[in-house]
Amino acid sequence: MKHEVLRALREERGRFVSGERLSSLLGISRTAVWKHVTALRRDGYTIIGQPRSGYALVAAPDKLLPEVVRAGLNTRVIGSKVRYLATTTSTNDLLKSLAAEGAAEGTVLVAEEQTSGKGRLGRRWECPPGAGLLFSVLLRPRLAPAEVQGLTLLAAVAVAKAIASSLGLRPEIKWPNDVLVGGRKVCGILAEMVAEADQVDFVVIGIGINVNLGTRPLPGAAAGLHTSLDAELGKRVDRAAVLRAVLKELDELYSLFLEGGPESVVSEWASYSATIGKRVTVRGINETFEGTAVAVHGDGALVVKTDDGEIRRFLSGDVTLRPDPPD
Amino acid sequence: MKHEVLRALREERGRFVSGERLSSLLGISRTAVWKHVTALRRDGYTIIGQPRSGYALVAAPDKLLPEVVRAGLNTRVIGSKVRYLATTTSTNDLLKSLAAEGAAEGTVLVAEEQTSGKGRLGRRWECPPGAGLLFSVLLRPRLAPAEVQGLTLLAAVAVAKAIASSLGLRPEIKWPNDVLVGGRKVCGILAEMVAEADQVDFVVIGIGINVNLGTRPLPGAAAGLHTSLDAELGKRVDRAAVLRAVLKELDELYSLFLEGGPESVVSEWASYSATIGKRVTVRGINETFEGTAVAVHGDGALVVKTDDGEIRRFLSGDVTLRPDPPD
Repeated sequence: MKHEVLRALREERGRFVSGERLSSLLGISRTAVWKHVTALRRDGYTIIGQPRSGYALVAAPDKLLPEVVRAGLNTRVIGSKVRYLATTTSTNDLLKSLAAEGAAEGTVLVAEEQTSGKGRLGRRWECPPGAGLLFSVLLRPRLAPAEVQGLTLLAAVAVAKAIASSLGLRPEIKWPNDVLVGGRKVCGILAEMVAEADQVDFVVIGIGINVNLGTRPLPGAAAGLHTSLDAELGKRVDRAAVLRAVLKELDELYSLFLEGGPESVVSEWASYSATIGKRVTVRGINETFEGTAVAVHGDGALVVKTDDGEIRRFLSGDVTLRPDPPD
Repeated sequence: MKHEVLRALREERGRFVSGERLSSLLGISRTAVWKHVTALRRDGYTIIGQPRSGYALVAAPDKLLPEVVRAGLNTRVIGSKVRYLATTTSTNDLLKSLAAEGAAEGTVLVAEEQTSGKGRLGRRWECPPGAGLLFSVLLRPRLAPAEVQGLTLLAAVAVAKAIASSLGLRPEIKWPNDVLVGGRKVCGILAEMVAEADQVDFVVIGIGINVNLGTRPLPGAAAGLHTSLDAELGKRVDRAAVLRAVLKELDELYSLFLEGGPESVVSEWASYSATIGKRVTVRGINETFEGTAVAVHGDGALVVKTDDGEIRRFLSGDVTLRPDPPD
């Protein structure tokens, strides 16, 4: 019933609604209305109460509670279920456990804080509590393991599109799936799978976005290479709105991917690419190469033309963008 | 000390050794020797005791206890650690949990019985307790997810070589990794991985071999399509000897694979193949195709020439061998 009271207040978009009207609308006593309003205030909602006018919702809490995330979210698969934790070890690790127990495709797990946040290639992902978006999405596509890298391109495109559409910033993607604004990293993506040798059981895509870090420095090596959406925009950012925008883009791109295959996502990836056409150093599992990035394939491979003219495909590893050589 | 008594008895290869000699050899009292012999008998060892001659070990228990499996096993990686359970849900599921907690590469988990044994593509694997070999092997190779299918070919080759060398049977492999004797299935293999999109974290290879099923029918659909090593050989088979042979072959092939890449295993796979050169129906994730199997690639792909002359690669799915068309 608390959620029904919240919904009724939301529909008024900040205008007052009387306790009497809420009471008759929801079929509960005016004392019950008052109790639910008190509970909502405890959850962090700012609700003004005036003797003759009634109640007005003026601000939602800056928490990514499921009801906040799902308000106005019209997706088909992604976000069908939203779970929220104030703190967890790693949203990917927890969602992998939930997936093994049968959680539904599209389940989104959001946390305000991770105590063991993970990045690609065994690295850590750090973000002060409440300053970022930290969430994981569960997918159960019928794919071979080799096709999962395409989903990480897809996730990077979804984040870039959401940042562009909801904030008007001009994000870029560094291969395979770092999202940059102004040349500095604002989002990291870690896709993990459990699979048979020839068929995926499930994929968990973890996304970490620096949203309201302000001028707070990130620890260690990340300093200088990272930025935050609010720093780029010059004002505080509504985290829930960005999250909803990402989930909406993920939902659309995932449908496209399942129907049209990975190539349907690659052209969008390329349009945001900070890598194609640039001189790069690629550090693979067993080797390091330099050359010019020329394309990305649907399986996620980066195609590099090496300095002696050889064309090579990289499916794994790390890319450093290099300054152009002097003329 | 019980294991030292066992080792001393083993070294006599069935001959008698006096309690006095055991006592001085191991630096324990004759009463202690007698106590350890009693404990070993409780474990299932058949040890004869005669007043003047001493003790003789005449039979090991038909249990795949770690000390039984490791006796005489000289491998580099595979079987570095052997764990044993009388019963478990699925050796793959349990070993995946142990792997997530940091278990070492090469760890082998053996069970006498699985209550939820799994086969490929979500199927069940059934075997009466004590009648088969049910074990999983943990590998931590630095591979991309797409390369894991090569490890399942490798596992099938290891089982086929072990059955050929230890029993003199003539096994065949049906793509990707069923091992057949006399055209009927004697072994199923299920490889599962946990991976990032571009890098494997670990692979668990589950192997189930029908060893001493005798004439006991297997339940359901498996009847008629399956056979057992003892049925093919006409006598009871030493399960531990077969297991040691498989672990030894796995150990050698895995070194070869890591040094020489998957192609180094493919030629051996092809030499056991029941699929290459045959007319086949391939059921992939989204399609069914007929044609003639012409090759296998290092990534595990089956290459099929379809009836209208097209060459297709299948990375996933199921193969049915078809009778040759009438002339």
